[in-house]
Amino acid sequence: MAKKTTGNNDQSKSTDAVVGADQIPSHTAAGQEKRFVEDLADKDDFAQWYFEVVRKADMAEDSPVRGCMIIKPYGYAVWEAIQQGLDTRIKATGHQNLYFPLFIPMNFLQREAQHVEGFAPELAVVTHGGGEELAEPLVVRPTSETIIGHTYARWVQSYRDLPLLYNQWANVVRWEKRTRPFLRTSEFLWQEGHTVHRTEEDAEAETLMILHEVYADFVEKELAIPVVRGRKSDSEKFAGALRSYSMEAMMGDGKALQAGTSHNLGQNFAKAFEIQFLDADGTRKYAWTTSWGASTRLIGGMIMVHGDASGLKIPPKVAPIQVVIVPIWRKDEERVLVEETVTTLERTLRASGIRVKSDWRDNKPGFKFSDWELRGVPLRLEIGPKDVQNTQGTLVRRDTRAKESVPWNSMVARVQDLLAEIQQSMFDAALRFRQSRTYQVATYDEFKMRMADRANLGFVETWWCGGAACEAEIKAQTQATVRCLPFERSTDASSGQCVYCGQPATTWAVFAKAY
Amino acid sequence: MAKKTTGNNDQSKSTDAVVGADQIPSHTAAGQEKRFVEDLADKDDFAQWYFEVVRKADMAEDSPVRGCMIIKPYGYAVWEAIQQGLDTRIKATGHQNLYFPLFIPMNFLQREAQHVEGFAPELAVVTHGGGEELAEPLVVRPTSETIIGHTYARWVQSYRDLPLLYNQWANVVRWEKRTRPFLRTSEFLWQEGHTVHRTEEDAEAETLMILHEVYADFVEKELAIPVVRGRKSDSEKFAGALRSYSMEAMMGDGKALQAGTSHNLGQNFAKAFEIQFLDADGTRKYAWTTSWGASTRLIGGMIMVHGDASGLKIPPKVAPIQVVIVPIWRKDEERVLVEETVTTLERTLRASGIRVKSDWRDNKPGFKFSDWELRGVPLRLEIGPKDVQNTQGTLVRRDTRAKESVPWNSMVARVQDLLAEIQQSMFDAALRFRQSRTYQVATYDEFKMRMADRANLGFVETWWCGGAACEAEIKAQTQATVRCLPFERSTDASSGQCVYCGQPATTWAVFAKAY
Repeated sequence: MAKKTTGNNDQSKSTDAVVGADQIPSHTAAGQEKRFVEDLADKDDFAQWYFEVVRKADMAEDSPVRGCMIIKPYGYAVWEAIQQGLDTRIKATGHQNLYFPLFIPMNFLQREAQHVEGFAPELAVVTHGGGEELAEPLVVRPTSETIIGHTYARWVQSYRDLPLLYNQWANVVRWEKRTRPFLRTSEFLWQEGHTVHRTEEDAEAETLMILHEVYADFVEKELAIPVVRGRKSDSEKFAGALRSYSMEAMMGDGKALQAGTSHNLGQNFAKAFEIQFLDADGTRKYAWTTSWGASTRLIGGMIMVHGDASGLKIPPKVAPIQVVIVPIWRKDEERVLVEETVTTLERTLRASGIRVKSDWRDNKPGFKFSDWELRGVPLRLEIGPKDVQNTQGTLVRRDTRAKESVPWNSMVARVQDLLAEIQQSMFDAALRFRQSRTYQVATYDEFKMRMADRANLGFVETWWCGGAACEAEIKAQTQATVRCLPFERSTDASSGQCVYCGQPATTWAVFAKAY
Repeated sequence: MAKKTTGNNDQSKSTDAVVGADQIPSHTAAGQEKRFVEDLADKDDFAQWYFEVVRKADMAEDSPVRGCMIIKPYGYAVWEAIQQGLDTRIKATGHQNLYFPLFIPMNFLQREAQHVEGFAPELAVVTHGGGEELAEPLVVRPTSETIIGHTYARWVQSYRDLPLLYNQWANVVRWEKRTRPFLRTSEFLWQEGHTVHRTEEDAEAETLMILHEVYADFVEKELAIPVVRGRKSDSEKFAGALRSYSMEAMMGDGKALQAGTSHNLGQNFAKAFEIQFLDADGTRKYAWTTSWGASTRLIGGMIMVHGDASGLKIPPKVAPIQVVIVPIWRKDEERVLVEETVTTLERTLRASGIRVKSDWRDNKPGFKFSDWELRGVPLRLEIGPKDVQNTQGTLVRRDTRAKESVPWNSMVARVQDLLAEIQQSMFDAALRFRQSRTYQVATYDEFKMRMADRANLGFVETWWCGGAACEAEIKAQTQATVRCLPFERSTDASSGQCVYCGQPATTWAVFAKAY
């Protein structure tokens, strides 16, 4: 059962190992562009690279409150795109949004034994309000199963009331000892879905539908992050869940990031909060509930999957700026000429629904190129006096750095094509990288070797007996945890022995070091 | 100066009088439809009517946490429409969204003397985190000037960095003794804009632009609520502001609701947090800041301006459901016939961007009519077997209850026209009501008479010396407060004497009892 506080979300508590001194992502075009290498990663250290790119690209910064971050406008614009992409899917699958209070009475958390055990160590507690000490302390919500369960017990009376399919966008607080912007912060932003069903089958179908049609669909199609989908091991599941499912993404250093989780809570919370309904057969039954969450952590994942030595690479679909126009001029009369063209092109692109910005700062073009590469804008459009003469512009891709001259009259169509191409190409590159770093191992020696090889770190797929003892031993010795028991297997092997104990395996599993 | 804790927002603390036993709004068609009168307002009491309509229309309900509400899906959908309407305008006027932490170190609040005096009595305080007592308590943000000011001091270095034009969507907490759903809750949702400028003129222009182009424009055009715009008196201004501006709306009982506020903070917060910049002339100067907020309180205003004895009336532009189709049938073969038509019409309306829902519940048509009237859906479309024969449908307006038969092939156009007409007509009705309840008085006797006449309560416009003593006396005697010193005057009088003390007036003022 859930001994660990695996969060109801993508902020897994399962591994808090030191971020290794791994390489800059090798699947990127890092070698081609050295301008920012010295600035961004002077120690050839992925963790250091991450901190610097988050700060220099103006995504987020530390706040005066320990463990809490300030999400800057450029980072928040990515979050707005993520919200929109998820919210559209959440609604398209029949859910409605609502809002529950930030505070939860302390005694609510104590009603589900595993739940309180998981979350108690990381609660922020309000003891005073309006100048007086409170009779009962209030917890700042770490997740909302309890207060929502308490309310659902009133909302659910008959089988006709089911299912309840609700979601909320909210901030939550989990007191974290070691924090990293976006990946693990004491306060984070997320959505948490909470549903109630008549049968176990309905709850299971909901849990899996959310994983596939909402989370994985969004993350793969819009964040261009390929994910491995599967079930969590018992030790990694949500505190209070019957079964947890997750999608796991491989970061540029070969570590795993849990990017979204969906939980079949069984009847655990229904029993703790008396969510009962009168069924068609005239008997009262406990309902089946689910919960599922995805958070600002996805921004960290996007950065770590796609970034390179020059900085961010933001997938076109979620990029706050998809095309940056950099005007190039020396003399004032050139500037006048260029300005007219830039203004017209900017207006034309914007009218076609493309998110475009022109950069008229006083700095030199080279500075601007680097600056927008750092911020990961997918396409740069350079317009100089010669371009004006030739009624063309130069488009430069952020991902491949390929350049091409494009006539004005086909600019919109070419930009649209290239944005689609970059989106697909970034997904493909991330998938190729993951495939190249996924190892099927038959022996524990090979397992250990893979986990010790920092420069080529990745996912290890192997047989496992399913026992918590083997899982704990493997983690203690290699820092690797069971990321999931994948739905799809990349091997044909049909049976085997546990890689650690050699007993008959019960499952195929993906192991990795994880954020 | 700010003796009262007038919030940085529309949640004014200025009047907390008992909501009077006033009438159901008289500007509505209340008399025509009695079905819900008994349910909704058995005591002919506006406060009671408000509680019941909020609950029965599934807008919100009390939570297990004192003073905090649960915003139900139907209410939250209105909030999403408000968010979208405001966010579009906030961005169109050059602002970007970002996000600051929920918690604020206690000492930050103490740096601006009036600010801490205003907010100290209503703070929620976190004293424990992660199982340990905190070295310094953290306040749950009641508003974010302080933590944002602290950060802006770093972001602002040169005049070239200015202006900073940022906004955040967030929850805030103010420990309230007496709460009412949407109008005054301990936790509420809002947006808070925080900007920094080079000069006083720039800050003043921003403050007024937000009031007019963002707040009043949205509230009048989309919530169909006419507002009086003006400056707050010193006693009613935001704790720490130089000048506060607000828009004031008249509710159905003649009381005022402060529906959004915009504050020129002068250099008060810049000095408290050392927000300085190097100006073009080479000298370091304190910056000028503003803040402005609008909240879930707007939902309460929408309910109280437009509602009638049958329930809500939601303006079409923010209505979660704009058209509800009620199928009517007796025999099964009629249902088949009707269903085909309803499905086609629903699809056609939705394809034209109209938010439409059909109600296939087992209840009788009369029940459904009342139910959707209660929820304030602007248009009802009835489809029965005869309508199918005649290839038409019956449209019924929620606001006037006018009925008309409309052929299928002109249904989309007619619905679009009617929605626009209802939107305008609701605004006009609210404006007429406000005008009919706005009284220009010359004597204090008349002032008192107007404030004592509950059945015809409204706004009183008159001359005021501007003195805090008169303001306090008037409030003590009549419960009326200065709502604002209006920009526009509905009288031609060019000078006068203070209605209370008879001394030469310094300003024309709008007085009212307020929520």
